[in-house]
Amino acid sequence: MTQFVLISEVGPRDGLQSLKSIMPTAAKKAWIEAEAAAGVREIEVGSFVPPTLLPQMADAAEIVAHACTIPGLTVAALVPNLFGARNAIAAGAHKISLPLSVSETHSLKNLRRSHDQVLDEVRAIAALVAEQPEGKRPHFEGGLATAFGCTLEGAVAEDQVVRMAAALIEAGCAEVGLSDTTGYANPAQVKRLIRRVRAEVGAQRLTGVHLHNTRGLGLANALAALEEGITTLDASLGGIGGCPFAPGASGNIVTEDLAFMLDSMGLDTGIDLERLLAVREIVKAALPDEQLYGFTPDAGLPLGYRGGWGLGPTSSSHSPSTP
Amino acid sequence: MTQFVLISEVGPRDGLQSLKSIMPTAAKKAWIEAEAAAGVREIEVGSFVPPTLLPQMADAAEIVAHACTIPGLTVAALVPNLFGARNAIAAGAHKISLPLSVSETHSLKNLRRSHDQVLDEVRAIAALVAEQPEGKRPHFEGGLATAFGCTLEGAVAEDQVVRMAAALIEAGCAEVGLSDTTGYANPAQVKRLIRRVRAEVGAQRLTGVHLHNTRGLGLANALAALEEGITTLDASLGGIGGCPFAPGASGNIVTEDLAFMLDSMGLDTGIDLERLLAVREIVKAALPDEQLYGFTPDAGLPLGYRGGWGLGPTSSSHSPSTP
Repeated sequence: MTQFVLISEVGPRDGLQSLKSIMPTAAKKAWIEAEAAAGVREIEVGSFVPPTLLPQMADAAEIVAHACTIPGLTVAALVPNLFGARNAIAAGAHKISLPLSVSETHSLKNLRRSHDQVLDEVRAIAALVAEQPEGKRPHFEGGLATAFGCTLEGAVAEDQVVRMAAALIEAGCAEVGLSDTTGYANPAQVKRLIRRVRAEVGAQRLTGVHLHNTRGLGLANALAALEEGITTLDASLGGIGGCPFAPGASGNIVTEDLAFMLDSMGLDTGIDLERLLAVREIVKAALPDEQLYGFTPDAGLPLGYRGGWGLGPTSSSHSPSTP
Repeated sequence: MTQFVLISEVGPRDGLQSLKSIMPTAAKKAWIEAEAAAGVREIEVGSFVPPTLLPQMADAAEIVAHACTIPGLTVAALVPNLFGARNAIAAGAHKISLPLSVSETHSLKNLRRSHDQVLDEVRAIAALVAEQPEGKRPHFEGGLATAFGCTLEGAVAEDQVVRMAAALIEAGCAEVGLSDTTGYANPAQVKRLIRRVRAEVGAQRLTGVHLHNTRGLGLANALAALEEGITTLDASLGGIGGCPFAPGASGNIVTEDLAFMLDSMGLDTGIDLERLLAVREIVKAALPDEQLYGFTPDAGLPLGYRGGWGLGPTSSSHSPSTP
């Protein structure tokens, strides 16, 4: 298992795009700043989709540009097509992700494109990325949505996930990710699919997974992924988000709970838990009508908590408080 | 990892004893019957404590006797002392568990006894168990409460957990269990502590763990335990329960979510998920003022779900519905 785990915060994109409320631009900036200050090293800050479709994301370019001024932060954006990719790159995004739904039914509903059409788009984006001057070339990831099952099709064949992973790499993605868009995944499946996709495209081309907590298995699935050598886990502050086009699917993994789990296991996330928990106040204030999720925020940190909880046989029963 | 996992339902004991509401005896019986009919093979049905302390458990003897009429069900009961053990055995319990809080502060608050006093009680109960005619001799387990940390003491030294496990076996318990009474556990700690205790007392003397979901890590911890070879996991229908003497600690693992996780991983629990989910209605009706928890009950089973979700590379994208 890796020692450093990158938590990639997707709340400002995946979270906000699922909500009816539109978060003001200033609040988005404050949220991103505060979360970066708490030690989060990568944030997906927006989606470059037409504002007519997702008015929540109308300020994506401004948000990306602002986030890029934060030192040490990897700024990611979702792009559904070449047009979006062009705008994301112009705004300065360090990383762009294009989702491909392994379930073609979901692909047609979500992106209004067949697999072949999505792969054409991937090739065009890859060419655009390659044209960028060195240092301005974003990391281009293809996200395999509905990789663990689909609310429209049901089970999704693993062979098909593996084929689509290979197709994305072939079409020019630097990396693929596995997304449990619908919250159908279980730990055994997570392990099996990571192994199969890595066997096909190489371990260095699958380093991250995007999991939901729809059926409460989010952190168990995250643990399974870590045990397979995954080093990047997506999560959303307060668990907001899901997928508006997958009925019944909701609930990203809660960043706070994930960060607590990893920290207590003695893994390094770079995140200060107390500061991370405080970021909720910014989100709450900006989204007064929305529910935030998470267990650790309600329960608080354990008494006398310090990272690497209970590590080692000599841990005292009267440990000092977190410094 | 084991192929059959025993889910031990603790709701009628750990769940109900934490609530202000008192569930009528008839409703308890209906709950236990329905859950056994759904395939749950072990249920902790009550606690033999003075009714003045826990009026919710005043009907424990009647409930045990009734549960013992259900074929194939292992009927477990909690006993705080020799007096309780005598009554539990008289009622016919197949399994009795006595909690020993590794945190002595918690032990004094919870059972009003020091470690030495609890161990004296264990010896007396072990003698009582040994006196029973063969076939009537209950399995006697010592539960190591606050094994992963204590809301009163903070961190709990692993050496102390190992010592107390050895002391319980030495005093006559057939087996020990590890309890995350306070919801402080993380997967790395779960694995480490299971390994250490098993190294001390033998693997066959630690087969079960009792985990809470206080910080959302319940199922991740359950997965960690399974990976260490644990074969029995406690859980509570609707996640009711916790520990009334550990302030801030609440939330057993939700039976429904755990059963879904195991079933979807292709493990055998003997449980019919649809029937298990239906049992919630009985509990809801009997506890109209209490909140039930769980994600799977809200989200429902995946479309076209059948156990062992996504197992095998040839799983079709249009699988048949659960038969």
